[in-house]
Amino acid sequence: MQGAVLYGPRDVRFEERAAPRIIAPTDAVIKISATCVCGSDLWPYRGINPTTEPTPMGHEYCGIVEEVGRAVTSIKPGQFVIGSFFASDNTCPHCHAGYQTSCQHKEFVGGAQAPSLRVPLADGTLVATREIPSPDLIPSLLALSDVMGTGWFAADAANVKPGATVAVVGDGAVGLLGVLSAKQMGAARIIAMSRHPSRQKLAREFGATDIVTERGDEGVARTKDLTRGVGADAVLECVGTQESMMQAIHSTRPGGSVGYVGVPHGVELDGEQLFYAHVRLHGGPAPVRRFLPNLIDLVINGKINPGKVFDLTLPLEGALTAVEAAGRPLS
Amino acid sequence: MQGAVLYGPRDVRFEERAAPRIIAPTDAVIKISATCVCGSDLWPYRGINPTTEPTPMGHEYCGIVEEVGRAVTSIKPGQFVIGSFFASDNTCPHCHAGYQTSCQHKEFVGGAQAPSLRVPLADGTLVATREIPSPDLIPSLLALSDVMGTGWFAADAANVKPGATVAVVGDGAVGLLGVLSAKQMGAARIIAMSRHPSRQKLAREFGATDIVTERGDEGVARTKDLTRGVGADAVLECVGTQESMMQAIHSTRPGGSVGYVGVPHGVELDGEQLFYAHVRLHGGPAPVRRFLPNLIDLVINGKINPGKVFDLTLPLEGALTAVEAAGRPLS
Repeated sequence: MQGAVLYGPRDVRFEERAAPRIIAPTDAVIKISATCVCGSDLWPYRGINPTTEPTPMGHEYCGIVEEVGRAVTSIKPGQFVIGSFFASDNTCPHCHAGYQTSCQHKEFVGGAQAPSLRVPLADGTLVATREIPSPDLIPSLLALSDVMGTGWFAADAANVKPGATVAVVGDGAVGLLGVLSAKQMGAARIIAMSRHPSRQKLAREFGATDIVTERGDEGVARTKDLTRGVGADAVLECVGTQESMMQAIHSTRPGGSVGYVGVPHGVELDGEQLFYAHVRLHGGPAPVRRFLPNLIDLVINGKINPGKVFDLTLPLEGALTAVEAAGRPLS
Repeated sequence: MQGAVLYGPRDVRFEERAAPRIIAPTDAVIKISATCVCGSDLWPYRGINPTTEPTPMGHEYCGIVEEVGRAVTSIKPGQFVIGSFFASDNTCPHCHAGYQTSCQHKEFVGGAQAPSLRVPLADGTLVATREIPSPDLIPSLLALSDVMGTGWFAADAANVKPGATVAVVGDGAVGLLGVLSAKQMGAARIIAMSRHPSRQKLAREFGATDIVTERGDEGVARTKDLTRGVGADAVLECVGTQESMMQAIHSTRPGGSVGYVGVPHGVELDGEQLFYAHVRLHGGPAPVRRFLPNLIDLVINGKINPGKVFDLTLPLEGALTAVEAAGRPLS
């Protein structure tokens, strides 16, 4: 089969790869219905994370089960399934606590930008829909595999409650879906930090009530202005840089919470600053598996449409174009 | 009057100071019944924090109200009161959220190692007991002013719940009272990290079920051993060094919480490490005021006896001896 492989900075090749097959008895092989490019793919694509060997791309996926190993009991061929970028057994103490991305047997799932994919620990990783979904739902179901699950975790980790004032740092797919998640959780006010008109528009559509275009300390000052000097109850950090992290921390009121899901790159937190900021900090790789059943219901029932964050649809051979498009600065 | 004043490293003088008087109409002046030396006094005493000018010592206090300003309505002369090291108005949004140590009008209260003390924002800062307490309760009531309130906040910030497995890093007064707080909150298992026999004994008396003498990575490994590789649900960080903070973070299970109250000295947190640790982090200067009414009840009703952490009682002139004793390494 042909799949996308990253060789190094700005070097994505669409080339022949061995078709995946069952290796462990707990594996499944699925036929990919849709996959996409993640913001985190851009770190190695831009050379900020090194690529030490040719690496099959893609960790967001949904599709039809083709084959399962002999130990798989709950997932069956023919089902439409969605999984997370980390495979999990969903039975260990960390999974039971709802932290499947810290599963004691976790395995990264890579190589989804291809016609089919091997998913380890299929019973613990994949969630099947009741029926084969109609094609128009596929983008939204695909979004659950990472960006929507991650935006939801940001809001969950930031402890968003009904009536809360929420700020969201970052207007990529995760940030926009963080806005959508905060809205679903009943936030009364959602301040989206964005300077791109098309993203501001989608943020408003998803529930943002205010837009802040300033960044860094100016962004903090603007958020404080909007909250009578108090700060937001909950702030979602969806970027992963030093500036965005400090912007999130300083936009939060004492006793408020920062949910951070942007993979940190070069972030160092000063203990004393954090101490006096008095905020709660929680985040990490989103345990998407925890949220999948609920999020699938919300999509199937038409309550949310996270697939709107996708702005370019291409056939699989277009992987390079897709990554290029994702990595291009917005006008 | 004569009071203790810090001039520089290891230079505490007991000398004449101006008697405090009402300055603002919201002030109270109290006659000190008891005061004490805090672990945080040792930072400037040892020269780790600079002392730029002669500084009256002491921020833990209880006593009898002598005089109040004309705007004070709830506190009256003759009452026995306890207050926190930060004065707070208890009416601003941060106070309403329970973060009085981030009060928009907060003022540090210093100079309590003297016969009397001016307390700003008396109505928002001081809590009066119903009656004048008997002398044997004074040490425990004094402890509420900082160390007990801080240990309680560590447990509260670490989200200690009934049945939880808790670890406490640090066996000073705050760490020991963190053990006591976790016990009061219903922790099923409390691992105290301590290598001093006298403190281990008090930790066990306060509710510790296990003692870990190892520090750093070895301490983490031992805690993991004791929790079948999972880590503790809640960890109280009561020291404030890089080692103790990392020990706390790595002893916590994914999804568990670290409550940190040791004033950080040179602590730097690596964003990526924190991200993958998957823990919740909350702490800062303890909002003692929030907890005072409940803690006073617990002391008056004989449910807790936090005064046991005091191991040396001296007349006020003994301030230097007291600080020296607090700063001496344990055998």
